[in-house]
Amino acid sequence: MRAAIAQAEVGDDVYGEDPTVAALEAKVADLFGFEAALFVPTGVMANHIALRMQLPAGSELVADADAHILAHEDAGLAWHGGIQTRTALTPDGLLTPEDVSRLIRPHLPHTLGTGAVELENTHNRGGGSVYTIERLRAIRAIADERGVSVHIDGARIWNAHVATGTPLREYGAVADTMSVCLSKGLGAPVGSVALLKPQQRAQAVLMRHRLGGGWRQAGMLAAAGIYALDHHVDRLAEDHANARLLAAALREAGLSVRDPQTNIVLVDVPDAPALAARAARRNVRISAFGPALLRLVTHLDVTEKDCVAAAQVLAHVA
Amino acid sequence: MRAAIAQAEVGDDVYGEDPTVAALEAKVADLFGFEAALFVPTGVMANHIALRMQLPAGSELVADADAHILAHEDAGLAWHGGIQTRTALTPDGLLTPEDVSRLIRPHLPHTLGTGAVELENTHNRGGGSVYTIERLRAIRAIADERGVSVHIDGARIWNAHVATGTPLREYGAVADTMSVCLSKGLGAPVGSVALLKPQQRAQAVLMRHRLGGGWRQAGMLAAAGIYALDHHVDRLAEDHANARLLAAALREAGLSVRDPQTNIVLVDVPDAPALAARAARRNVRISAFGPALLRLVTHLDVTEKDCVAAAQVLAHVA
Amino acid sequence: MRAAIAQAEVGDDVYGEDPTVAALEAKVADLFGFEAALFVPTGVMANHIALRMQLPAGSELVADADAHILAHEDAGLAWHGGIQTRTALTPDGLLTPEDVSRLIRPHLPHTLGTGAVELENTHNRGGGSVYTIERLRAIRAIADERGVSVHIDGARIWNAHVATGTPLREYGAVADTMSVCLSKGLGAPVGSVALLKPQQRAQAVLMRHRLGGGWRQAGMLAAAGIYALDHHVDRLAEDHANARLLAAALREAGLSVRDPQTNIVLVDVPDAPALAARAARRNVRISAFGPALLRLVTHLDVTEKDCVAAAQVLAHVA
Amino acid sequence: MRAAIAQAEVGDDVYGEDPTVAALEAKVADLFGFEAALFVPTGVMANHIALRMQLPAGSELVADADAHILAHEDAGLAWHGGIQTRTALTPDGLLTPEDVSRLIRPHLPHTLGTGAVELENTHNRGGGSVYTIERLRAIRAIADERGVSVHIDGARIWNAHVATGTPLREYGAVADTMSVCLSKGLGAPVGSVALLKPQQRAQAVLMRHRLGGGWRQAGMLAAAGIYALDHHVDRLAEDHANARLLAAALREAGLSVRDPQTNIVLVDVPDAPALAARAARRNVRISAFGPALLRLVTHLDVTEKDCVAAAQVLAHVA
Repeated sequence: MRAAIAQAEVGDDVYGEDPTVAALEAKVADLFGFEAALFVPTGVMANHIALRMQLPAGSELVADADAHILAHEDAGLAWHGGIQTRTALTPDGLLTPEDVSRLIRPHLPHTLGTGAVELENTHNRGGGSVYTIERLRAIRAIADERGVSVHIDGARIWNAHVATGTPLREYGAVADTMSVCLSKGLGAPVGSVALLKPQQRAQAVLMRHRLGGGWRQAGMLAAAGIYALDHHVDRLAEDHANARLLAAALREAGLSVRDPQTNIVLVDVPDAPALAARAARRNVRISAFGPALLRLVTHLDVTEKDCVAAAQVLAHVA
Repeated sequence: MRAAIAQAEVGDDVYGEDPTVAALEAKVADLFGFEAALFVPTGVMANHIALRMQLPAGSELVADADAHILAHEDAGLAWHGGIQTRTALTPDGLLTPEDVSRLIRPHLPHTLGTGAVELENTHNRGGGSVYTIERLRAIRAIADERGVSVHIDGARIWNAHVATGTPLREYGAVADTMSVCLSKGLGAPVGSVALLKPQQRAQAVLMRHRLGGGWRQAGMLAAAGIYALDHHVDRLAEDHANARLLAAALREAGLSVRDPQTNIVLVDVPDAPALAARAARRNVRISAFGPALLRLVTHLDVTEKDCVAAAQVLAHVA
Repeated sequence: MRAAIAQAEVGDDVYGEDPTVAALEAKVADLFGFEAALFVPTGVMANHIALRMQLPAGSELVADADAHILAHEDAGLAWHGGIQTRTALTPDGLLTPEDVSRLIRPHLPHTLGTGAVELENTHNRGGGSVYTIERLRAIRAIADERGVSVHIDGARIWNAHVATGTPLREYGAVADTMSVCLSKGLGAPVGSVALLKPQQRAQAVLMRHRLGGGWRQAGMLAAAGIYALDHHVDRLAEDHANARLLAAALREAGLSVRDPQTNIVLVDVPDAPALAARAARRNVRISAFGPALLRLVTHLDVTEKDCVAAAQVLAHVA
Repeated sequence: MRAAIAQAEVGDDVYGEDPTVAALEAKVADLFGFEAALFVPTGVMANHIALRMQLPAGSELVADADAHILAHEDAGLAWHGGIQTRTALTPDGLLTPEDVSRLIRPHLPHTLGTGAVELENTHNRGGGSVYTIERLRAIRAIADERGVSVHIDGARIWNAHVATGTPLREYGAVADTMSVCLSKGLGAPVGSVALLKPQQRAQAVLMRHRLGGGWRQAGMLAAAGIYALDHHVDRLAEDHANARLLAAALREAGLSVRDPQTNIVLVDVPDAPALAARAARRNVRISAFGPALLRLVTHLDVTEKDCVAAAQVLAHVA
């Protein structure tokens, strides 16, 4: 990947002249059956731009109450987008068709109606939980009937794809817009892609610039993204296997572990920040995801052996 | 009330010099045991200003998914306030302590925490449903423990007070800020009051001006508010009795009526907009509150006889 | 006026059902040759709503650097409207056609173009300075040629009309939108009117609600506005005569007075706040308009005799 | 530079763990005598974050009317920052101390005061015009006296430094915050740095994340920035010499050329977009900076020979 970066052909992406960025955007759009894409610095920006293409300020977005857009994007959608969120609590971050049906509000005089639904697949705070394509289609049908659009936060869509075998284009077919991440699981250093309708792209470019994301010779990063797509998607199956291994080892050690669906392992503990700190001192870096919740993530720099070792450390410090 | 309006002593409220406005603000603050109040044109503005005193842009507010601030304020809190809402679906608009406990998120590195909880009492879309003071206190205790503030949308707090006998000051005691409405049930032509901490008032005045609510000789409207507080609170009991009468009559006529707790009667019907239109043609004005939900409101211009007549019309057109 | 208020026929303006509000809006629209109008609590809200009908968030507005929208509206246009202001310094608050020509920027790729020009007539900080209709037409011609719209902040347009004899419809003819104030010089207690294109009105009503200006039985205030329009416009000539009288008396007393064009007298002094405070203790209430600038305003509660007395007090405390 | 990128040591900058990013930030902070710095994707984001650290929403910023923040940042400061701009027209983009003195408004009751002054050095639309350190110090003195802060948009500060010999720390000493760009003249592919007070940094990191700029393994780009600082600053003198050469050649060819102060040459022409298009067809890429203004920029990929050739092409197509 570093060689690809060092040799990337570049141009000024502010002027739309970076050939490697263009190649990456075309590649990702094609993977999901979209006609337009925009390469941006982060998944946060990809979500914000894609959602703002569908929702003017003063609109309502329906999502689950633990969505990444609510928990980990510093309220950016409300802050710069003026978008109101209406949410339901769920056990695993996944909305059911019934939830969506109750959450979508019709536009009536003197009542704000819903403009879009957001679904996160896989779901970070849900522990890498996966939407089945059947559930996505059922939600899409409700959205169509009610006249609202659908955005998929697909930062981890690659994991859903590998875990279920659902082709990427089938995910693309249920979404009006998507965001996908080339960093995290895929291992590129920087960058996400927003998938858009062709008529949204010019406005999305302007919004990227206004948000401070109009970068210049981004082709170096795009080259890493292309490399990641070519080499790092299928190997996510190893991360999933490692997550299962890790979960089993932790459970055996007496910890309260939730079943991992992909590459995320959630562990309920009495004091997560303290435990995370103790683990960090023994070089096992995990997140306190809540006062009593740990998140462990497997990825391309974590081997089977690492998982065994990490489980031992955690068992020890817990 | 009109005589009170015509004789009101006035001054320029932009300069804080309207004596009748000052008298109204002092009166309402005292009723609820607050030390500062601000008279504003609408309940929407009262909610927005009060909440913005607690929540900087980029904060999170917890509320029920059918709150007035979400359904009937055109997403203003997100639009100009940059405030994110995290909500739970409820059967009657009222959050349980368990809901609140699940909805409040702690501030952690890389995770947005909750700043405030909003409770609507009585609850408009919940059909005038009432929070008991015990439930409010239980929620207040959770909020204190978790370090978040509490705002009560008390547009209809007068109805809760009359229905339950809970003193107004007990409502005031569980809230950091409140909004109360002098129009609607109380019958003043225009105006709501935001109840605030003393140190918030100067900033609230500035925000009112910035939002276009810095009115001038508002004492005429404040006089109506004072009159309404002196004469129209206790009589809300009649509205409640009328609502029960109306509900009984509608139920007798075979309609699917929810039990009214105060002055709002919700009726589930197959096609609410069509039914509301048919009733309007016979001079019964009701709201289609959803595709299949009617809202009927009793107030000081609606007599017992009117309720009987309205029930007959509705039974006929249904 | 108080009798008119007390007897006003009212309805709920949130539902568009207040007949007196409708009558006021129709009257003001007709006066200026507009087809739509919206009654709102303040001139600030009238300006904000009218300008936001022309300028989406992320647009540029051209104005003079001392405009009311910049100095006295707490940055509301940027704060909730996301509108950027590009300004020029002027001696009297009035833009020349040359200023406007330099300030309007064309839309080019990667360069933000200007969307609208704002003109304030008469100009508050300019000391009640008046745009001639010829200058307004010259600016309108430039705006047309460059494809930008024109908003007139006409809070004091009545003074311009009385001072110059220009018919109100001629002012209306050079503007895409206007705001006019019924308070201040005209003496109504509360309220301004935004003049709009018919197709903008529904969106303007929604924005008024979202900003917290969707008031209910506003007909009482509208009745005062109608009364003011019928009885208080022509008499502004007296205020102008009084301003000239006041200016002459102050100049005679050795103060550095700018020539008043309408009902505002500006006086350059070494320490304006101190002088204003001293005058206030002798019951002459004037504004420190800057560290070294006093503003004196004549209006319907200020008589010729009051002006003489005020000049004596000021000469004494200066 | 590509080798430096390929070999960069990296970490997750969202967690503040990228050593190369940390090294770049420390290096730039030290160059300008600041104590804190933040690496961000673009100069737009660096300006926005730095200014928002000084100016809450609803504040006023003073700048020249042709500043990059107004012309080329899509009104972002107003759009997400709620910051009002008050500007003066200038011949060359540079504010005089007198301009600044007139533009800064004191905070008075009912009048919005100015919070900060922004200066762009060198000034892009002013044709690379340079603030002398004496003028900067005079403006700083006014700002201090009036209690407002100073931000320098130093995207091209390197050119000012090389053109005048003023040490970078002297620029840093007159600014509360700065932005500097590693792309453009310095030739790094992506990235700018915001220079901040230490107590602003945590909030700046949060704002970067919220704007979608919280990138991950950005050390690859930071490595390019370090390389650029080590190798590409002094060589800007060649760009300046080339700009003078280009200007002379164009003038000789009969074009109306403004004197270049650094690496930007402005040429007044009858129809800039048409001329730019004709030049582009002959492989000379220049910007139509206005309807009648061309901008030519020399940089590290443009040789003396290129300048001679470009002048010939322009003379031919003009």
